[in-house]
Order: sequence, then structure tokens, then C-alpha cells
Amino acid sequence: MSVWALKVVGLGAVALTLIVELVCWLRRRPDTPVKEVLFFPTEVACVEHIITPTSLSPCSCPLRHGIENSFSRLIRHIMSVSSSLDLCVFSFSNTLLSRAVLVLHSRGIAVRVLTDKDYSLITGSQIGFLRKAGICVRYDSVAVHMHHKFAVADGRRLITGSMNWTLTAVQNNKENVLITEEPDLVRPFIQEFQRLWEANDPAQLAIA
Amino acid sequence: MSVWALKVVGLGAVALTLIVELVCWLRRRPDTPVKEVLFFPTEVACVEHIITPTSLSPCSCPLRHGIENSFSRLIRHIMSVSSSLDLCVFSFSNTLLSRAVLVLHSRGIAVRVLTDKDYSLITGSQIGFLRKAGICVRYDSVAVHMHHKFAVADGRRLITGSMNWTLTAVQNNKENVLITEEPDLVRPFIQEFQRLWEANDPAQLAIA
Repeated sequence: MSVWALKVVGLGAVALTLIVELVCWLRRRPDTPVKEVLFFPTEVACVEHIITPTSLSPCSCPLRHGIENSFSRLIRHIMSVSSSLDLCVFSFSNTLLSRAVLVLHSRGIAVRVLTDKDYSLITGSQIGFLRKAGICVRYDSVAVHMHHKFAVADGRRLITGSMNWTLTAVQNNKENVLITEEPDLVRPFIQEFQRLWEANDPAQLAIA
Repeated sequence: MSVWALKVVGLGAVALTLIVELVCWLRRRPDTPVKEVLFFPTEVACVEHIITPTSLSPCSCPLRHGIENSFSRLIRHIMSVSSSLDLCVFSFSNTLLSRAVLVLHSRGIAVRVLTDKDYSLITGSQIGFLRKAGICVRYDSVAVHMHHKFAVADGRRLITGSMNWTLTAVQNNKENVLITEEPDLVRPFIQEFQRLWEANDPAQLAIA
């Protein structure tokens, strides 16, 4: 075999290896973003170790411990936020979800909450506690119901579904929560949140 | 230049062209499945031309005509179903959405409806009309609320979100509907629908 023939075979082998690597890399990429679906109801188990992992003493709450379920997965997604959480929720009365959001705020994470005016006043609503802690809250009082139940974490992860952030929803209802980082699905929610946030700016509403 | 050198250059050019084509094809593929987000409220415009495109006479209904919005997009997604529609919805009182489902049924498409027992009895509920037309309906009476609002079309397209299939939701509420064909997101909903469908089989419930 001539030197040229050897060169062609060698070049072909290198090119083939590179193509296979490239194809594998391109095929892997779409699977990397988070895609998860959670269904409820589920038992509300203790999530203290997720909310405050640095806690020194073992938790003494009456809830069951060591359970990994849809609720703990949801709490894990919330606690994994590193820079911002935009929450747009109709009804928010779940104290554990409220604690998770308060811990994020205490870490310096930018939390914005948009909620329904009427439902923010019902017994057990956590909205007042979030406000008192210094979290920026805006109210929609135009729609019959500001019925969304979505959150955008770090500007790239969408948490959305049928479930309000209440105890009944988690424990008693048939509900779903879908989590995705697909940009084409997340982007419209980011834009809608910003649109509603600006539309319900109290300063602008006062002028109007 | 020798014959061998020409062959190497030619082979290289062909390989490069093939690689570029392959990369472009692989990058295009993830964009092919439907990914869409619809926001509400929106004006309820006439959708007669979408529900019955073969209608000979122009529609004389009092709704506005020639409007393309979130509601008409939703109707288009429903009317594009070709083999099956599994609908799992808490409250269903929207007459236009009901008409769309009835037309699918009349075309021989396999429609299954799973709904909340209590909410199926409220004034304006369309569930009774669907049953009378011969559509198979099952009721969840176990959960406090069977609060889902999702549909799986043709076993591959998920339509889900915060929105019940009511007139108020479409016209007055802030709502979202997410449509995706991402298998990792659609599959859990297919499985959950089947689980709930079997769990609420009247024959099984009678035995229990």
C-alpha cells in the first residue's frame, strides 16, 4: 500500500471518529435540560432536611421522615434556585412552600410574587407573611381570577401546572406540576410574568 | 498535483458536505415537535370555520369573525386530533369546546373524558351532553377535587395548564395552556390518565 493510501485511510478513520463523537454529543444535548412531571395528591412528609440542610438537630416535627415523593421533589426544585424566583400563583396557603420561599429570600435570592387580590385575603394565605419578610408582592385585581400557578426559577426553569400552592392541593386533590427548561416553553412564561408584573405596578395603577 | 492528492481533496470535500448536512439535520430535529404556550383571557371569537370547515354558508353567529387568538389556537389543536383524545378536566362548561369534542366523536375519534364528580353536576356543565352523545365519561369522586386540566391528543400531544374548559376561564381569567410533544413530558400524563381511568371504572367501583 502506498504512503498516500495509508494517509487516506488514516484521515478517514480520524474523520469517522470525529463524526461519531459529534453525532453522540448532538444527540445527548437535548436530554440535558430538566424535564419532569409530578402528580398529586401525596403525603406531606417532613422536608426540613431539604429546606434547612445545615440544621444541626434532627427534626422533631410530627410529619413522616425519610420520604421522597412529589412534594419533596417540588421543594427540592424550589430550594435549588440560585438567583431568582418569579412566582405567579392564584392561591398560596401552604406553610411549607411559604417557608421554602422565605429561606430563598433570606439567602438574597430575588423573589417576586404576583397573586390574586381576592385570594390573598383568605384565611391561611401566606402572602401577608411573605410581604412582612420584605418580599416584593404585587396583586392582580383586574381579572375575575388571576388563575396562574407557575414559577420561573433562575430565568430558565419553568414550574407550572394545575396545582395551587395550598395544603389541600398537595394532600387531597388530583393535581399535576410540570417542570421544564425547554426555552421555547419557558420564554413565553417569562414574558407573561414581566407583562403582568408591570401591569400591576402600584405606582402605575395609582397614576391611572 | 498527483491523482492521489486530488482524490484526498475530493473525498474531504464530500465528507465535509455530508457532515454539514448531518449537523443541520440533527439541529433541526428537536424543533420539529409542537411547543406552544397560550395565554388567556382572550376574546371568544367565532371558531365555526375551524370546527366545521366544510360548512357551506357563512356563519351568522354574533361573535366577531376572522380573529386568530389563543382560543382559536386551542380549538385548532383540538380539531387537529386524528385518532384519540383523552381529556381529564375539573370543570367543563364551555359550549364551543364541547362542540369541538362532539365533532371529534362524530368523526369516529376515540374520546374519553375523566372529570370531577361534583363539578360535573353544576349548572352549565357540558358533561351530560357529551355522555348523551355516546362519549365515554368517568367520574372521580375520591379526591377533594379532581383538579387536572389536561388532554392528550393522539397519544403524543399534551395540552395542559391552569385553565378549566369554561367560558369564564377563557374570557375573564388570567390562564395558561401549554402544548408539547416532548415524549418525556407527555408519557407521564398518558400513564396518569390510564391509571385514573382504570381507578374510576364503574364496574370495578361497584365490586369494591
